[in-house]
Amino acid sequence: MNENDNLLPYKDHFLYNILNPKSIAVFGANNNLLETMGSMQLRNIIAGGGLTGNIYPIHPRLENVQGIKAYKSVLDLPITPDLAFLILPTTAVPTVMEECGQKGVKNLLITSGGFREIGLEGIKLSQQVDSIAKKYKMRFIGPNCLGMYNGWYRYPDIKNAYLNTLWMYKTPERGNISIVSQSGTIATQLSWYANDLGIKIGKSISVGNEANIDITDFLDYFQKDPLTEVIGLYIEEIKRGKEFIRLAKDIVPQKPIIAIYAGGTEASTRSIMSHTGSIAGNQRIYDSVFKETGIIQTDSILDFLYLLRTFSFAQKYNIYPEGKKVAIISDSGGAGSMMTKSLELNGLEVPEFSRELKSKFLDKIPSTASANNPIDVTFHDDFFGLIYKFPEILIKSGEINSVIVYGIYDFDEIIEMVETSGIKVDESFKQIKNVIPRTVLKPIKRLMQKYSVPVFYVGPLPYRFTWNRLIIDNEIPLFSMWDQPPRCLAALTNYSLVYKKKE
Amino acid sequence: MNENDNLLPYKDHFLYNILNPKSIAVFGANNNLLETMGSMQLRNIIAGGGLTGNIYPIHPRLENVQGIKAYKSVLDLPITPDLAFLILPTTAVPTVMEECGQKGVKNLLITSGGFREIGLEGIKLSQQVDSIAKKYKMRFIGPNCLGMYNGWYRYPDIKNAYLNTLWMYKTPERGNISIVSQSGTIATQLSWYANDLGIKIGKSISVGNEANIDITDFLDYFQKDPLTEVIGLYIEEIKRGKEFIRLAKDIVPQKPIIAIYAGGTEASTRSIMSHTGSIAGNQRIYDSVFKETGIIQTDSILDFLYLLRTFSFAQKYNIYPEGKKVAIISDSGGAGSMMTKSLELNGLEVPEFSRELKSKFLDKIPSTASANNPIDVTFHDDFFGLIYKFPEILIKSGEINSVIVYGIYDFDEIIEMVETSGIKVDESFKQIKNVIPRTVLKPIKRLMQKYSVPVFYVGPLPYRFTWNRLIIDNEIPLFSMWDQPPRCLAALTNYSLVYKKKE
Repeated sequence: MNENDNLLPYKDHFLYNILNPKSIAVFGANNNLLETMGSMQLRNIIAGGGLTGNIYPIHPRLENVQGIKAYKSVLDLPITPDLAFLILPTTAVPTVMEECGQKGVKNLLITSGGFREIGLEGIKLSQQVDSIAKKYKMRFIGPNCLGMYNGWYRYPDIKNAYLNTLWMYKTPERGNISIVSQSGTIATQLSWYANDLGIKIGKSISVGNEANIDITDFLDYFQKDPLTEVIGLYIEEIKRGKEFIRLAKDIVPQKPIIAIYAGGTEASTRSIMSHTGSIAGNQRIYDSVFKETGIIQTDSILDFLYLLRTFSFAQKYNIYPEGKKVAIISDSGGAGSMMTKSLELNGLEVPEFSRELKSKFLDKIPSTASANNPIDVTFHDDFFGLIYKFPEILIKSGEINSVIVYGIYDFDEIIEMVETSGIKVDESFKQIKNVIPRTVLKPIKRLMQKYSVPVFYVGPLPYRFTWNRLIIDNEIPLFSMWDQPPRCLAALTNYSLVYKKKE
Repeated sequence: MNENDNLLPYKDHFLYNILNPKSIAVFGANNNLLETMGSMQLRNIIAGGGLTGNIYPIHPRLENVQGIKAYKSVLDLPITPDLAFLILPTTAVPTVMEECGQKGVKNLLITSGGFREIGLEGIKLSQQVDSIAKKYKMRFIGPNCLGMYNGWYRYPDIKNAYLNTLWMYKTPERGNISIVSQSGTIATQLSWYANDLGIKIGKSISVGNEANIDITDFLDYFQKDPLTEVIGLYIEEIKRGKEFIRLAKDIVPQKPIIAIYAGGTEASTRSIMSHTGSIAGNQRIYDSVFKETGIIQTDSILDFLYLLRTFSFAQKYNIYPEGKKVAIISDSGGAGSMMTKSLELNGLEVPEFSRELKSKFLDKIPSTASANNPIDVTFHDDFFGLIYKFPEILIKSGEINSVIVYGIYDFDEIIEMVETSGIKVDESFKQIKNVIPRTVLKPIKRLMQKYSVPVFYVGPLPYRFTWNRLIIDNEIPLFSMWDQPPRCLAALTNYSLVYKKKE
């Protein structure tokens, strides 16, 4: 993202102020981080850095909360806060909202649950909340939500701050993905996996019951937001169907949308009813909405994460395959065969190479190996061949549209094992780690961009291994295990052929 | 596994001697662990411990390989080795086999590739190998394979040894799972994931081209082997269809079989042809074989791993659900709803609880929470409730057949974060980690066994976290992320209802 992009247009959106308040009043936090949810949430706001000096805990008894002067009521505040954040017992919400209204607060975030999702009594309270909001012209996210993570808090005016009102203290690295979710978990608990996999999330919002602000509002905002290039949705119910469809159709060609729809079966509908009070609909209705809009649908949380990462990469570097032809280079016949099958079942092709292209590999692989597609290099010690030279030949061949490379890209453990066995490891081998960003990772990304051919690296080692971290940190798509690459490549290719590149 | 089990019957099987040789001759190893595949394989045999003093490297020039006296020819050996292990250029194989035959060697492991998988010339060599084997009445695994991992090497006579002829230096923890695979990768490169997930593999054999010994031989062996309780197969081709089907039908009711079939599409068939030279068949033929035998089929490597772990657990502790009714307890409405949907799509039920059962939860969860199934406990600080007391109530209720618990089971990171924020964490909270094996993990497993109700724990944290490791080490099914638990529970329930428990 270029900082000079004109960020102004979307700053006029009413959600900009909610996601980027200059001051915040927090109701329901104390000093007990482990037992009071709001306390952890206040801690996370403080940790974000950007609001220092502008955080106002409101507490009936405490003079000081987590080192910050507290006030008995919002009415006592020296300023009118941009955002009021309520993590209070349900019944306290209307009174506090009234006071916020009197103080002139226009935006709220209501974490408190116990509204329509619990039945009649909650519905009444919900109506009360709605009418107070109407009276004071207030907008609010929630109730029954966790709030938001905004990794780009007041960017570019403030460079390294974030706003995290979620309970989760762990934040993802920021990037071009924006998530809006009717589940707090999907908005928040993905952070560990996100960081392991290198999924960079710029915004993640838990919208809860959507009594006032809904997913469709966020779609509208994300469309205008230059920092959003990929959108993730977790849906239990779409409230404004027509607007949602119209907007999504408009957005998808520029910004791919990945969605989970959790309803559609008998018990899941009951589960959703008691979760956010939503009335989930028939799966076929949602299927047709997704089809009509071009939204990519999945029921799997791992698919969701990997698809977000795949499109985040494709969008950021503008690397979209121009056709369905995939080349596989593998030092494993088994993983190669499984991926080949999966690619075909997902509608892609693994074509034989031309005689000319095959001949380019024959002197580079063992005599027992195969230069068909997949290229099975069997056991070999040509690390740079597998990771760079072979993909380069394929990319430049013009015969294929994307490449999957299967192998082992981390040798720290092997080096340690060999040395433990009392055998000396050549220093140059140990140094590969230090040179691959310059000699392999950056050049291969340049090739991918130049030819618009994505290269996916796949292997059996965990993401946490040091060399693997290097690949992830350099934003090269690395997959631990081989279920995901064919699925992600199929989704990417399908999207590309409809919206980006014509075959 | 009780050591007093009668291990004798299966010791008569010809494969017992191949998997448990008392001495081994290794052709093709030197001192270069990183560039010669056989060197790493010798290193791994040495590391296994059980064969110390009985390993004989054969090398034309070296006097000493990896610290062990080497011989110029197998004919020079002071003894006749139980097993000859060939990691040699293809053309050297017949000569060496001849010499082995003359020496009286009866069993071989041939890693060398370059046989039928490369075409006509290889087929000729393969025929030569076959006729030498026939002449000397030799049996061999391979060619074009990686060999074997036997975690139970000569058990119980030798307690802590293993035999690992694979290239992979990383071995899984041993257990009741036995894998036989036509892919070296699936036999070997699963170790990292296996250890992360707590998948305990007792044996893993790469059979390559199956010129002499095939998957069906291993099925026969695993059927008799008391150390094998679950079987994993990676299949590119079944050579002896009738025998395979007859055996599998016989085995499945006692020992569940999970299989990957990698053929069935156009390019995957080509890929397989150049991998092991197998002729893969139509997917529908394999579908009907799997259906007829009761083999559980998957195209996903992660499903394969998780299914192996699920059945390994069920077999070891004899915990099989007696019906399709699943209870979910969750502190996340979203993950709970997604799992509910997936359970239903996989044929299981998430029924509403009786009024009586619901009432048992109402005073234990927040007023905003739901005691329907799923029980959504929302935010709460009752760790022992979520992890033990609630499952206990459900298990004893008689209303459900299995339980899924979603939550966070690791607090080291939170404790560190809170203390970094300058807030004291109660010592008793920190000590939970030390008491949960005794107060939670062992008791819940006893309950699972007594009532035959499996409890699956699911959460968003990575397996590497300390408390999570505790759960895994105590052999409680823990899932990081929530795609797998419904699929595994469905497979387990279906198997159980056909072969173990009648509804």
